Amino acid sequence: MQPPLTAVRNVAQTAAGLPARLRVRQPCVHCITNNVAQNFTANALLAAGCVPSMTLAPEEVGAFAASAHALLVNLGTFDAERRRACKIAVKAAGDNNVPWVLDPVFIERSAARTDFARGLAAHGPRALRLNVVEFTALAGSVPSPDTLAAFAREHSLVTALSGETDLITDGTRFARIDNGHPLMSKVTAMGCVASALLAACLAVEADAFVAAVSALTIIGVAGEIAAEGADAPGSFAVTVIDVLYRLDETMLQHRARVTS
Amino acid sequence: MQPPLTAVRNVAQTAAGLPARLRVRQPCVHCITNNVAQNFTANALLAAGCVPSMTLAPEEVGAFAASAHALLVNLGTFDAERRRACKIAVKAAGDNNVPWVLDPVFIERSAARTDFARGLAAHGPRALRLNVVEFTALAGSVPSPDTLAAFAREHSLVTALSGETDLITDGTRFARIDNGHPLMSKVTAMGCVASALLAACLAVEADAFVAAVSALTIIGVAGEIAAEGADAPGSFAVTVIDVLYRLDETMLQHRARVTS
Amino acid sequence: MQPPLTAVRNVAQTAAGLPARLRVRQPCVHCITNNVAQNFTANALLAAGCVPSMTLAPEEVGAFAASAHALLVNLGTFDAERRRACKIAVKAAGDNNVPWVLDPVFIERSAARTDFARGLAAHGPRALRLNVVEFTALAGSVPSPDTLAAFAREHSLVTALSGETDLITDGTRFARIDNGHPLMSKVTAMGCVASALLAACLAVEADAFVAAVSALTIIGVAGEIAAEGADAPGSFAVTVIDVLYRLDETMLQHRARVTS
Repeated sequence: MQPPLTAVRNVAQTAAGLPARLRVRQPCVHCITNNVAQNFTANALLAAGCVPSMTLAPEEVGAFAASAHALLVNLGTFDAERRRACKIAVKAAGDNNVPWVLDPVFIERSAARTDFARGLAAHGPRALRLNVVEFTALAGSVPSPDTLAAFAREHSLVTALSGETDLITDGTRFARIDNGHPLMSKVTAMGCVASALLAACLAVEADAFVAAVSALTIIGVAGEIAAEGADAPGSFAVTVIDVLYRLDETMLQHRARVTS
Repeated sequence: MQPPLTAVRNVAQTAAGLPARLRVRQPCVHCITNNVAQNFTANALLAAGCVPSMTLAPEEVGAFAASAHALLVNLGTFDAERRRACKIAVKAAGDNNVPWVLDPVFIERSAARTDFARGLAAHGPRALRLNVVEFTALAGSVPSPDTLAAFAREHSLVTALSGETDLITDGTRFARIDNGHPLMSKVTAMGCVASALLAACLAVEADAFVAAVSALTIIGVAGEIAAEGADAPGSFAVTVIDVLYRLDETMLQHRARVTS
Repeated sequence: MQPPLTAVRNVAQTAAGLPARLRVRQPCVHCITNNVAQNFTANALLAAGCVPSMTLAPEEVGAFAASAHALLVNLGTFDAERRRACKIAVKAAGDNNVPWVLDPVFIERSAARTDFARGLAAHGPRALRLNVVEFTALAGSVPSPDTLAAFAREHSLVTALSGETDLITDGTRFARIDNGHPLMSKVTAMGCVASALLAACLAVEADAFVAAVSALTIIGVAGEIAAEGADAPGSFAVTVIDVLYRLDETMLQHRARVTS
């Protein structure tokens, strides 16, 4: 079930080329995300060469999603208007073949969120990015290669589990990423930014498994490089944006620790 | 139709004095602006010596607008409550002679926004700050000195078009500003901050044309100076705030590139 | 009415130990706070070792407040959904013995806010953090040791008045804190962060008077240290987060200026 090492090398090689492709294509990424994350996410996407938009108004979110190159649906703020916006945007994305990412933030904290996330997961996200407790709440089982792959196959999506080691699968292929830095967990919305970058990568890379590996490698390597120049979370967050702006193929090739 | 060179020199000279006037007067600037921009805008206004407020609640936005020295109406987030807040605030501003700025963000992306922005433009904003695609959507014609001036005369306002070169007109006078730096387009809400500074300048300078030239010169020069100390967007955004705090008449006199 | 000097020394000594206790206990702090403050508050709490959450949705804010270790109720954004969220969260906090802080931001600007804040003050906040004009609006009298103590006794809470000198009382004990730096007033949401840290301290310290002295000492000392490395508000705000991450008992012991 695991790909040969050559295949993973190819994935890592393709991932290394993603920052340049984002800068050339400048994809429009529409983000339905929580208030806490909006500014940091917009700046991360801009730094990576993308064009972010963030509106939630039901009157127009469909038009924004339909004309975007990718969509992020993050449940971090869960008010009534945002839930309506999610539904409209997901429908517009489906109708217009716009790839989208589901980030079911904090669903373990409330049954209403879990139910809503399950409903969205059934509407065709290309990828799911989440952590251990969120996966457990969503899938009803603790994450393992088997449960992650089963969920991916059942929903025809790529599951990207973030943690000290990231684990990514489309149901048949697997990748592990050992990049990242502990300071990333001390900055709010770092996971939301990872999901937004995953949406951006889906806009320029048709293979969602490759897109997910690329996005989590990019943010993990950016975190590592940032931590070399900043050893506390305030300056670290600023430096992550700086590094996303500068990140290139060589840096990713030297730093990426992607294995099968 | 163009002012003599002396007049523009006087405008630039007046503009250079604006930061000191803001620090002395500390105007209250009420901002109806998008979620993404709120924190950065509040910090930019504070750095420049102003007192920002940001509430959108219909119950109180009228009182905040009526008691402010200037008002910003930015359409970046377009939910129902914010539209109501816009109408209430604009009416309160009109009734109390509070100058206000319209920033029709992203109106090219949705017909609902364009219609709403046109309605607001008919309610007496003192100035309009926007970019090329936004002007084209709002006015129905591509921006040129003629179309900008026609729009300004028709609506009795100052049109401030941001771009590599900024173009400002009140319908009879014209100014071009060649300050700024490409990194400004890599930080979210930099245009929103420009509009907020324009509102602040209207609070202390009765000539809206001079206020608009001042505000766009201030943010352009701040961007240039910031880029000398920060070459990537994360640290650049932080440094722009630092520079707005330090900016003085001498720096503006040396740096401003305002021509007619 | 004033405690002997030994008692205040003990309070300052306990305060110095709070950062370590926060890092060990990692309390969940649910924040109902304004849009402008959400990101900075979340990052400040994370830097101090806490786990912030920020949802406002009526469907789930009760569950978040009930399962948190402390709650912050900040009135900075005053829309209808947030007012509902306040009421639900305060009830859940009361039912589950979760200590909470009221920060009645900007209540002097609108009668609707003042009324709402008075209603909340009657529902059992453990502490109130506010500035001179906010206290005057809330209590109907200018702050003095007598009026602050009377308000504290009447509402069975700790009153923490921020200013150049902070004044804290539970109705019988008093403390003055002379830490802090003028740049703190040039960064938006610095007061909101102080209130959030006060909520965090309530989660790990049962004596609300000691918790309030601790929180205001922590943020005041953090501001002082940050100002030694950053002399303008953009970099100062970033550095405050860095300092909150590094702050330890020795730094607080050397810097705290707490007197009775």
